Amino acid sequence: MNPTPPQPVEPWRVLGIDPGLQVTGYAVLESRPVGPHVCEAGIIRGRDAGSRSTDVAARVRSLYDGIVEVLDEYRPAVVVVESLFSHYDHPRTAILMAHARGVLLLATAQRGLPVVHYTAPRIKKTVTGHGRASKEQMQHAVMRELRLPRLPEPHDVADALAAALCHYHVGRRSQREGA
Amino acid sequence: MNPTPPQPVEPWRVLGIDPGLQVTGYAVLESRPVGPHVCEAGIIRGRDAGSRSTDVAARVRSLYDGIVEVLDEYRPAVVVVESLFSHYDHPRTAILMAHARGVLLLATAQRGLPVVHYTAPRIKKTVTGHGRASKEQMQHAVMRELRLPRLPEPHDVADALAAALCHYHVGRRSQREGA
Repeated sequence: MNPTPPQPVEPWRVLGIDPGLQVTGYAVLESRPVGPHVCEAGIIRGRDAGSRSTDVAARVRSLYDGIVEVLDEYRPAVVVVESLFSHYDHPRTAILMAHARGVLLLATAQRGLPVVHYTAPRIKKTVTGHGRASKEQMQHAVMRELRLPRLPEPHDVADALAAALCHYHVGRRSQREGA
Repeated sequence: MNPTPPQPVEPWRVLGIDPGLQVTGYAVLESRPVGPHVCEAGIIRGRDAGSRSTDVAARVRSLYDGIVEVLDEYRPAVVVVESLFSHYDHPRTAILMAHARGVLLLATAQRGLPVVHYTAPRIKKTVTGHGRASKEQMQHAVMRELRLPRLPEPHDVADALAAALCHYHVGRRSQREGA
């Protein structure tokens, strides 16, 4: 009998998502010995079917199809999304965003993936050291740490990278602490 | 050559939905010569996976699976959902509801079904004659008009029936007016 050949180890990947009905940012980070590596980062547009800019159904459909493609290509171990109630001050935006969030969470649940939530200040503090960092500070911190050749644009991508990076650090910290 | 046999006419059905992350009400109305007929009405529970009452991902998944079952069994011609911004006064509820709304709209978009939105006052006015009717008045009006043996309960079912009924009347009115 032959011994079982060594199985290839699946790389540990985190998918960060910044949900939006018009634009959803996403970022796939992979854990490597030298540090976190960006496999892919970009945006998915919630395209409507035609001229009706309020066609929420068409938008959620294209967001869903887009995130399914990312999930199935990169098979992340965990998905990170900003917490639910960071956006109370802008209820209209928050309500639209929640439609997007619903279908993104559906896609992850259908694949049995765990979802981790962090509040916006927690993500900012972990990534920049300041819980109230500006968008520009976040973009710079993300660029530096991930050794990107340029600032991540638009900010939806930077936010998705920051969410993934936050979990990367929290995960490493709890490993060190044996938690 | 044989003439083409007469094709069975698909009954014209309206699906009314009252979205909620905990409980989604739904109601399928069929247009019949004697008036609207209730094919089925009930609720879909957003079940979470375990003890975590905030597991939004698990809830949207069970809502999605539930509405897909209803859509594929009854094949409605149109889906009616209350308008987006009727719920500004309760942003927390509205944000949770919008997660449910997102996956329900996704299921309809995946089937190419048109979605019609009415504001809450429009539905109330069409069904009861008063734009500010109470929940109880709505339940009674729906029961009377649909010749139900008892009050539709819980109110999520009554609201879904009312949404479907509203579109049934608006649709008939526009047929009469040739619109």
